[in-house]
Amino acid sequence: MRSFGSDNHAGVPADVLAAIVQANADHAPAYGDDPWTARAEQCFRDQFGEQAQAFFVFNGTAANVLALRATCRPWEGVICAKSAHINVDECGAPERIAGVKLYPTASGDGKLTPAQIDPLLVGVGDQHHVQIRLVSVAQSTELGTCYSPAELRALSDHAHARGLLVHVDGARLGNAAASLGVGLAALTADAGIDVVSFGGTKLGLLGAEAVVFLRAELAEEFRYLRKQSLQLASKSRFLAAQFVALFEQDRWRALASQANAMAARLADGVRSLENVTVTQAVQANAVFATLPRAAIAPLQARWFFHVWDEPAGEVRWMCAWDTTAEEVDAFVAEIAAAVAAA
Amino acid sequence: MRSFGSDNHAGVPADVLAAIVQANADHAPAYGDDPWTARAEQCFRDQFGEQAQAFFVFNGTAANVLALRATCRPWEGVICAKSAHINVDECGAPERIAGVKLYPTASGDGKLTPAQIDPLLVGVGDQHHVQIRLVSVAQSTELGTCYSPAELRALSDHAHARGLLVHVDGARLGNAAASLGVGLAALTADAGIDVVSFGGTKLGLLGAEAVVFLRAELAEEFRYLRKQSLQLASKSRFLAAQFVALFEQDRWRALASQANAMAARLADGVRSLENVTVTQAVQANAVFATLPRAAIAPLQARWFFHVWDEPAGEVRWMCAWDTTAEEVDAFVAEIAAAVAAA
Amino acid sequence: MRSFGSDNHAGVPADVLAAIVQANADHAPAYGDDPWTARAEQCFRDQFGEQAQAFFVFNGTAANVLALRATCRPWEGVICAKSAHINVDECGAPERIAGVKLYPTASGDGKLTPAQIDPLLVGVGDQHHVQIRLVSVAQSTELGTCYSPAELRALSDHAHARGLLVHVDGARLGNAAASLGVGLAALTADAGIDVVSFGGTKLGLLGAEAVVFLRAELAEEFRYLRKQSLQLASKSRFLAAQFVALFEQDRWRALASQANAMAARLADGVRSLENVTVTQAVQANAVFATLPRAAIAPLQARWFFHVWDEPAGEVRWMCAWDTTAEEVDAFVAEIAAAVAAA
Amino acid sequence: MRSFGSDNHAGVPADVLAAIVQANADHAPAYGDDPWTARAEQCFRDQFGEQAQAFFVFNGTAANVLALRATCRPWEGVICAKSAHINVDECGAPERIAGVKLYPTASGDGKLTPAQIDPLLVGVGDQHHVQIRLVSVAQSTELGTCYSPAELRALSDHAHARGLLVHVDGARLGNAAASLGVGLAALTADAGIDVVSFGGTKLGLLGAEAVVFLRAELAEEFRYLRKQSLQLASKSRFLAAQFVALFEQDRWRALASQANAMAARLADGVRSLENVTVTQAVQANAVFATLPRAAIAPLQARWFFHVWDEPAGEVRWMCAWDTTAEEVDAFVAEIAAAVAAA
Repeated sequence: MRSFGSDNHAGVPADVLAAIVQANADHAPAYGDDPWTARAEQCFRDQFGEQAQAFFVFNGTAANVLALRATCRPWEGVICAKSAHINVDECGAPERIAGVKLYPTASGDGKLTPAQIDPLLVGVGDQHHVQIRLVSVAQSTELGTCYSPAELRALSDHAHARGLLVHVDGARLGNAAASLGVGLAALTADAGIDVVSFGGTKLGLLGAEAVVFLRAELAEEFRYLRKQSLQLASKSRFLAAQFVALFEQDRWRALASQANAMAARLADGVRSLENVTVTQAVQANAVFATLPRAAIAPLQARWFFHVWDEPAGEVRWMCAWDTTAEEVDAFVAEIAAAVAAA
Repeated sequence: MRSFGSDNHAGVPADVLAAIVQANADHAPAYGDDPWTARAEQCFRDQFGEQAQAFFVFNGTAANVLALRATCRPWEGVICAKSAHINVDECGAPERIAGVKLYPTASGDGKLTPAQIDPLLVGVGDQHHVQIRLVSVAQSTELGTCYSPAELRALSDHAHARGLLVHVDGARLGNAAASLGVGLAALTADAGIDVVSFGGTKLGLLGAEAVVFLRAELAEEFRYLRKQSLQLASKSRFLAAQFVALFEQDRWRALASQANAMAARLADGVRSLENVTVTQAVQANAVFATLPRAAIAPLQARWFFHVWDEPAGEVRWMCAWDTTAEEVDAFVAEIAAAVAAA
Repeated sequence: MRSFGSDNHAGVPADVLAAIVQANADHAPAYGDDPWTARAEQCFRDQFGEQAQAFFVFNGTAANVLALRATCRPWEGVICAKSAHINVDECGAPERIAGVKLYPTASGDGKLTPAQIDPLLVGVGDQHHVQIRLVSVAQSTELGTCYSPAELRALSDHAHARGLLVHVDGARLGNAAASLGVGLAALTADAGIDVVSFGGTKLGLLGAEAVVFLRAELAEEFRYLRKQSLQLASKSRFLAAQFVALFEQDRWRALASQANAMAARLADGVRSLENVTVTQAVQANAVFATLPRAAIAPLQARWFFHVWDEPAGEVRWMCAWDTTAEEVDAFVAEIAAAVAAA
Repeated sequence: MRSFGSDNHAGVPADVLAAIVQANADHAPAYGDDPWTARAEQCFRDQFGEQAQAFFVFNGTAANVLALRATCRPWEGVICAKSAHINVDECGAPERIAGVKLYPTASGDGKLTPAQIDPLLVGVGDQHHVQIRLVSVAQSTELGTCYSPAELRALSDHAHARGLLVHVDGARLGNAAASLGVGLAALTADAGIDVVSFGGTKLGLLGAEAVVFLRAELAEEFRYLRKQSLQLASKSRFLAAQFVALFEQDRWRALASQANAMAARLADGVRSLENVTVTQAVQANAVFATLPRAAIAPLQARWFFHVWDEPAGEVRWMCAWDTTAEEVDAFVAEIAAAVAAA
């Protein structure tokens, strides 16, 4: 099976698996007191800056929810895009597990702007109102778009001036950095971001994500929250080894670049087709497009992908680290045929 | 490094790793809609009985907390041993994440008896009181002891007659089954148990546990609770493949038996030493013993293990699937020397 | 001080206080096992129908949050108007205490329509998504408008057909019923409503609200939720006596009618003023109006009222059970003068 | 009906009701911005010391649970006596609403000692363990005993030296202070206590309790927690007026003293009876006694009181502010008769 359904349909690069096998030597202390974990933590400092404190967790839901839990007190809330994963796809975990109220904000391209923050800052200091504490943005967004470093800096400056923190849901941060041609720090620490959920799984890991704090005080007692939130791995070395492999010689960039390139190739391939419209800027590894409704079901019968907006006839095609040019070209050809036949 | 500190200090058997590598073929649907997950779910039915519904989670804390969350309403509580992992080692997750009140009950050998239940059933129907809903027992216990199938049946009959359910924290269920020479169903479904946390990690998996419901109605909406509780793996096939390897030709039994045999060998080795007392029946892969305080620190300088009860001079030695007879013998020799020198 | 700021700025009618004093005789069992509580529960059955089960709580936040808590499981959500009290004014209690996710929906007049429900029913049965369980409407709304019985019936039929329940936030249900000239049952049980938060405080009580279940199964275990949610009064008779006084000879209708009539008088008084626009239908005890910004501050210096929408220059004027025609007329005169001077 | 069942079976002194009636003048701002609330807050400063910040809530469960919620972070826990109200009678609210784990500690007389704290301070700094943050003591205790100021000081010194805070569940703090002949500050601020739940209801109020912070930093953001926890009264003046009446000329002391004196009279009356043993020191308004089982039911048929310990044949008799000497004497006579007949 080959899929354009999600970048988590792909498996794991051989070198990542090899790193896991290599970490399987001898006994090691559990719960993070092992040399692989220490080395992976250093990798995060190398990539995100010396102040970065990374805590490994199992999945992206956890990385996001724990970032909220670590920054918001019980009466505090979070601004996010309406399309944000934390708003749409976490089965209420932000509300139920982190206990925060979300303020979902409309956004055509999945990105928030500083101007959208202020209208939500109502009832400041008023005991009846949730107090906004955090702005959460996704990079790349759920719509495959990216914030530039300058856009992130503008957001964080604006937020900080109002006493707010900024969180980046970086389930696809590698894709954004590869697309923008910058490092991970440029999109986080250097842009004033306070806390990041860094995604490894969609980049190719077996299953490993991290909450990365860029302000020391946020990390201070986080180990308790991680454990209590069901996210402390006993054999931590096997999460850590994946990260070490990912950061070794910037392996993440190669993986992300391949996914991005394939999305660009796919977008280029369909753009010329009549009745197909690419609806979002293709800045990472996702292509959003509208096509004739009658073309969708026949295509889905042969390729796995999701309809994004049923009424609009909009689909989402995701490329992964292992998507090949041949697949993309074959897919484009079938899209062309399906659209022509519709 | 070799350790008698915990069975999760050990790594992963080569065949389990091979199964992961083998699952790394092609694309696969995420979140459990893949053939590996289906096959692993069938393995659980084969082992626990046809009615068993297994949901994979990342770690033992999650398996326990989700078992509580799935069975208890907000005003319901859980009887457990004082030494229970859910009482001592989950950083408050049962209270904070599952929202239950625990009723920890004293037990010299870590096991509960039916007679201990009734005195806790006070305030039944009284709105001021938490209503007991669940009895949670560990098998094997935190003290390395095992319930016989008859003991479990007596507990579950007693509990059911009072409208209670029974949960088995089976982080080491394999060790118990191997020790008792029975199958996993004999200790769960056939003994009237309602829900099990089944532990794979301590048996040798990289990191995979399961909540196994033995009554269909408990499982009905559990998928929402798992996702919301941060425990739905996107690349579920890599958890599933581990379980398939574990259940293939009862591999779990061989792994557990080795750990158990090494604990027995270790206990036998120290039992004859003067000033060393084995304090619990050695029925699984743990040895608890008291020894002269002056002997402990020198031993710990060369071998990793935990002091269990500081004032009593009691230590815990755990054996794993990969503990060898040579190691045990060497360790016994050093214990003998340290005790003699103390 | 006289206020158009809120109907909870008013005190308590003398007969309600007298009822409290009368209940202060002798000893009485605590926590609701007293004759006053039984009598008040009967009053609720008389007003809402025989199946009505009323549980008294301390305030409106509690009545709303407990209605949500009693109806929604951890992964379930609630549709409400964007202007709903549960969305705006409960400091996150619905999310943090009831644990539900809200789906705030835009509404110009504070009312929801059946057509607004279906677009929110996405991801039904999908483990990633919160499952909508409840539609919560306010009657009268936060904008002083009322649903007709037919509108409520249309909503509840639509909701029930989709497996949803309907909650009425009736902090001002009495005002709505008085305005519509119907009984409380006509707006609740007879309209298919499942659970009501009934407000006594804004009608004139010292402080007493009720969660009223109109489906027996919802009430079954509610006593535990009420106690656990900090809402079980020990001297329940003093809450109950207030309700008895309120329902005696439909006292609530007289109190509500006075407040409504004063709002109508106020609206009539300002409608003819140039530069003043009444922005919502005046169907209960609230008047919303825009007036020149320069007129607002001088008026507020002499009368207490809230600006509702700062940018729009919109204010809210609330009338209470004890608002008098003289006050209204004096206030209208000052509004006229302030607007003229602006 | 006259009852020795609980001090909350009594009603309200006439002067307290008169204070409520007096507060029923004119309009007043809601949610605590009224002069009665300001005056009552000043009363608390007068009684507990200038640093005292009092927040009014509706009932004792709320006062206790909010004190825990305000002091403990999600991974922190609370030491209390096994008999503590928070452990036994709050339907799990400490765990579910405050989210804390309790460490119930055995105590024959309901009191904790400094020596009981240290053995519970295990796993300090260890991410697997709940971190103890608070010691909660009841004054007077659920067993009718009192801590002396010196005992409280010893506890708070011991706790503070270990980084812990101390909470007093003062549902009956007035009874303790009256019994000890000291002021409320002597038992709280002057004894190093950090936060108090102060009970008015059992002293005679209609229904009003307070969370009193004696360290400013604990109170800083508490208004949000109170509102979110369903405890902000809209007509706050009617709670406040009750407290003003209670503190006026130390009215609380007279009320408490009467209850205490009646308990002493009752204890004195039964002490000489054969087969009746007063089992706890009578230091407040409770009498605990064992009597022949056959005597209990006949007595309960005529007087309301609770059996405390069924197997032991132990009963609890509570006296209230309005218990009279005549009642006590009549009750004693009937006890004597019942015991003689048993």
